[in-house]
Amino acid sequence: MGLFKTDQNVVYKPANEVDLSNDSSEFYLRANVKAPRMAGFLVKVFAWFLESRILGTLLLYVLKGNNLIHKLITDAELEEPPIYTPLHPFEDVKEQEVKCIEYDLSPQEKVEEAVNCMRMSFKNISEGVTASFRRWTILDYSRAYTSGELTPKVVAERFIEAVRESSNPPLQMSFFINSDAADILRQATESTFRYQQGVPISSLDGVLIAIKDEIDCKPYPTTGGTKWLHKQRPCKDDACCVKRLRSCGAILVGKTNMHELGAGTSGINPHYGATRNPYDRNKISGGSSSGSAAVVAAGLCPVALGVDGGGSVRMPAALCGVVGFKPTFGRVPHSGVLPLNWTVGMVGILADTVEDAFIVYAAISGELPSHQSTIMPRVHFPLLNSPPPISNIKLAKYDEWFNDCSDDIRICCSDVVKKLEKHCGWKTIGVTIPEIEVMRLAHYLTIGSECTTALSTHLEKLDFAELGWDARVALAVYGSFSSKEYIKAQKIRNRQIQFHEKIFAQADVIVAPTTGVTAYPIFDDALRTGELDYINGAALVRYSISGNFLGYPAVTIPVGYDKLGLPIGLQFIGRPWSEATLIHMAFATQAICISNYRRPEVFYDLLNKR
Amino acid sequence: MGLFKTDQNVVYKPANEVDLSNDSSEFYLRANVKAPRMAGFLVKVFAWFLESRILGTLLLYVLKGNNLIHKLITDAELEEPPIYTPLHPFEDVKEQEVKCIEYDLSPQEKVEEAVNCMRMSFKNISEGVTASFRRWTILDYSRAYTSGELTPKVVAERFIEAVRESSNPPLQMSFFINSDAADILRQATESTFRYQQGVPISSLDGVLIAIKDEIDCKPYPTTGGTKWLHKQRPCKDDACCVKRLRSCGAILVGKTNMHELGAGTSGINPHYGATRNPYDRNKISGGSSSGSAAVVAAGLCPVALGVDGGGSVRMPAALCGVVGFKPTFGRVPHSGVLPLNWTVGMVGILADTVEDAFIVYAAISGELPSHQSTIMPRVHFPLLNSPPPISNIKLAKYDEWFNDCSDDIRICCSDVVKKLEKHCGWKTIGVTIPEIEVMRLAHYLTIGSECTTALSTHLEKLDFAELGWDARVALAVYGSFSSKEYIKAQKIRNRQIQFHEKIFAQADVIVAPTTGVTAYPIFDDALRTGELDYINGAALVRYSISGNFLGYPAVTIPVGYDKLGLPIGLQFIGRPWSEATLIHMAFATQAICISNYRRPEVFYDLLNKR
Repeated sequence: MGLFKTDQNVVYKPANEVDLSNDSSEFYLRANVKAPRMAGFLVKVFAWFLESRILGTLLLYVLKGNNLIHKLITDAELEEPPIYTPLHPFEDVKEQEVKCIEYDLSPQEKVEEAVNCMRMSFKNISEGVTASFRRWTILDYSRAYTSGELTPKVVAERFIEAVRESSNPPLQMSFFINSDAADILRQATESTFRYQQGVPISSLDGVLIAIKDEIDCKPYPTTGGTKWLHKQRPCKDDACCVKRLRSCGAILVGKTNMHELGAGTSGINPHYGATRNPYDRNKISGGSSSGSAAVVAAGLCPVALGVDGGGSVRMPAALCGVVGFKPTFGRVPHSGVLPLNWTVGMVGILADTVEDAFIVYAAISGELPSHQSTIMPRVHFPLLNSPPPISNIKLAKYDEWFNDCSDDIRICCSDVVKKLEKHCGWKTIGVTIPEIEVMRLAHYLTIGSECTTALSTHLEKLDFAELGWDARVALAVYGSFSSKEYIKAQKIRNRQIQFHEKIFAQADVIVAPTTGVTAYPIFDDALRTGELDYINGAALVRYSISGNFLGYPAVTIPVGYDKLGLPIGLQFIGRPWSEATLIHMAFATQAICISNYRRPEVFYDLLNKR
Repeated sequence: MGLFKTDQNVVYKPANEVDLSNDSSEFYLRANVKAPRMAGFLVKVFAWFLESRILGTLLLYVLKGNNLIHKLITDAELEEPPIYTPLHPFEDVKEQEVKCIEYDLSPQEKVEEAVNCMRMSFKNISEGVTASFRRWTILDYSRAYTSGELTPKVVAERFIEAVRESSNPPLQMSFFINSDAADILRQATESTFRYQQGVPISSLDGVLIAIKDEIDCKPYPTTGGTKWLHKQRPCKDDACCVKRLRSCGAILVGKTNMHELGAGTSGINPHYGATRNPYDRNKISGGSSSGSAAVVAAGLCPVALGVDGGGSVRMPAALCGVVGFKPTFGRVPHSGVLPLNWTVGMVGILADTVEDAFIVYAAISGELPSHQSTIMPRVHFPLLNSPPPISNIKLAKYDEWFNDCSDDIRICCSDVVKKLEKHCGWKTIGVTIPEIEVMRLAHYLTIGSECTTALSTHLEKLDFAELGWDARVALAVYGSFSSKEYIKAQKIRNRQIQFHEKIFAQADVIVAPTTGVTAYPIFDDALRTGELDYINGAALVRYSISGNFLGYPAVTIPVGYDKLGLPIGLQFIGRPWSEATLIHMAFATQAICISNYRRPEVFYDLLNKR
């Protein structure tokens, strides 16, 4: 237990001396969150206190102390130099069963390459599976459009009607912040015309895709879940990733709801409503990409884009029972995404199936040349031909961490891992990943500091009454960190990269649940003020942080349901640039679990008449 | 004048819209330093104020405001994302007249390659020059040792005697913090034996080299100019650069004096004495590598190592009339250097001649493989065969900045630039480099934040009475920055990299004086407390910052003297990894100026009996 030397300061052992084996003496520190759930009037009082200059300073000092930030970070001794960004050098990772794609192919060409990777030896991946519930894939849409069985226009009309219904009582799902029927119909008409002419642009032509309201997408403002940010920062153009989807013929159907400023994990937005979970509308959808997860779960689009700065794609995906895929930091260009942080966020994909996540990944991946990266990674596409696609896989599993979740999640995820070992021949290796809670705090400090810096000039011009109450609390905490604390957090980042590189030297991926809890209830007192629930919040982000703070690619796959019928996600975290392996693994996992998939309470089948 | 939009916040134009041409409307902002010189009792009072919790906070707020930190950085609006480290991607820069050296040669092999680059077409570079004063080079020593004319042991004995004399009254030059005669003699005896056996290790065998007391070098403690740091952080091994020199047979003669913690530019150290300028012992030597510059100027060693985090090699080199060479960020391994910062510092070389700087650069250059750099730059060595070595050179010159110095410096440096145009056929291009003063503040904020973080655990254990008073003031300011200020400073770094990359697209180097003032007097009231002289300090660092904050290589060459006979340096700042071009240019400049070189007041001729 080399972590604590004295009662005062934590003295960290040099990272390379820490034992990462299964029987390491490093102990697992549970999240030490000392804050009760607050909503309604209590949140307001708390925000007022925090925002007062002197009382606020004192209160923040106590809060940071109580939550071990001082002990574990600010005053800790550690010798590693800071690493400020998780941009990993591109080494041509060795992956099994992949096709190497040149980075300078057009998005359309990449999409077709991806489709070809799936066409290799079987026609329809999901066919032949006796599924109690099967979702339509991009290729299902594409086939229906090509055969003339259906047109994009008809699907668009069904979509518009479904959005109308889901937005109004009694459902009031709060999926979208903006969705313009006329704009959708215009795109659908153009796509329909292309199919009629026999010249669809790509397999994505006419496919509906929703975009998180943190990503620029014409003709919509980019609100970031606020009532004001779009007034100060007008959306002038599509973000790069949106541009690529549009160039493939995809129909962009609007901007999905999100936690205000991405500053929370519940998806309860006081301005645009709490996004409700299609599996149970009284439960949260998770956040911050809440709407993107929920619309996919509800069958409104096969795919949506989100942004994942602290699990914000994977958590709602898991809670809503869909696939959530966060590529390696730097894999997708960030231009046109609200700059709420610079070193942890990444565009991610929420999809009904692994196949669809793969196709959209193909369309949007490929970084632009930039100052500090001469890297121009070639992309590996997985050859998804015959399950099990790859056999020689080693999973690193840290039991104490893996098991720090609800009973249902633990049992379900452990069970699936065992099935994967059995059916695919994968091996599980016991490891210890030290200081995970320290990393959570360091990441919080980092994303908070960057968020408050990114917004600082906007916030100065802002009447704070325009902000939600939970966002006000978040911003007060975010703005309280010193440069020393920020740099210390980057030293922690270095340690964790060292730990993880050692683990990735002996295993292909790290396996863990995606969240520590399933979707929890939306209480009425939270609807107008938002809520502060740091205990559930810490449980939600528990397994997400290394994907952001260390830049690793990660994917969550729906693997089952808890006793209440709420979805559970299993997560694989991969080596830098090893997306192909993750897709292979996600695909195999989906194949094992698909026969148990259940239809959500709120679900629209746009391919078939109702 | 796009800089200021309102009276309140500065709104910066996007960097790519700023006009960098000669006739740009961007204005030159002079350093707006609002602080009187303080020494003696005043410094103490100031330190006490700053260290008091409430008064200090208020005072720091006023100070930062007065010095435009709030206006230009904290509250400024700028859209560029932060760039945290100036590690440039290695592109194989196209340079004229170079030999490409593989990075994995041993230090000895690299030294011999460097020597060969100078042997190409002439025997002794400095021969044939009618110099009023000529310094001995490494090759002079090497030849004298090889011929048996002299032995390392004799030179070492003369050195030890000279150090004794210069340390005691009446001179009291305060060159060294530690120098161990027995250890020097042991090394000299071994080297002498090697020459006697006819098996010297390299041309550096038996050459005396001094090391700044910020770099680990056995058997000495690494004090960092303090009375306490070495007690908390024992020196366990040679730094990587020292190891490389030792492996070449160099005699390491001790640890040179420096500004305490590198936190100042005067070289006045309250614990180990004010390092005095060999050209006038009543003047400062400049800092922070004060002793390293002064020992070279005084003829005690042909070369010394320093560390340059904010001009700390180039400033004292210029003030003491020697060559100062700071390679590209990342070119020399930093391991074993006190971690006083992580993103601006670089080991640098202080040398009597350009030839010697080149040889030592050859010995110590070559980064170790590290996490975030897969770069393994091959090194270019300049072929210094016949002057002018390279002709097709373009110098970028920003007149308003170039001329913001004392009359003597301006006239002397301008004159030399004209001579270079005439004799070498180089061309000068007028440019505008915007926001130089903003960059100085951003760099100050960065190095301060990193220094206080690096030292934080040491400082907690420290009785502040062990610190010098000016260091206490520096640390109080360093510790006052927020994470927002730190990140904003990194956004400024991005802007400046964009500006400089544009300038380097049209010019090979930027030319400027090295300092805005020459060596100024050491007043008695400063000897025990240090002094705060931010006006002279800002003038000293005026031309240094881009070398550190943006990581560019830079070299200063002595080009003349002011009316009082104090040395003046001219500086070239180069593209990333273009050290060979800088050495070529420095060599040509030296050739033009050498006939006017003057002998310092305090000078030891170790090659000849006195």
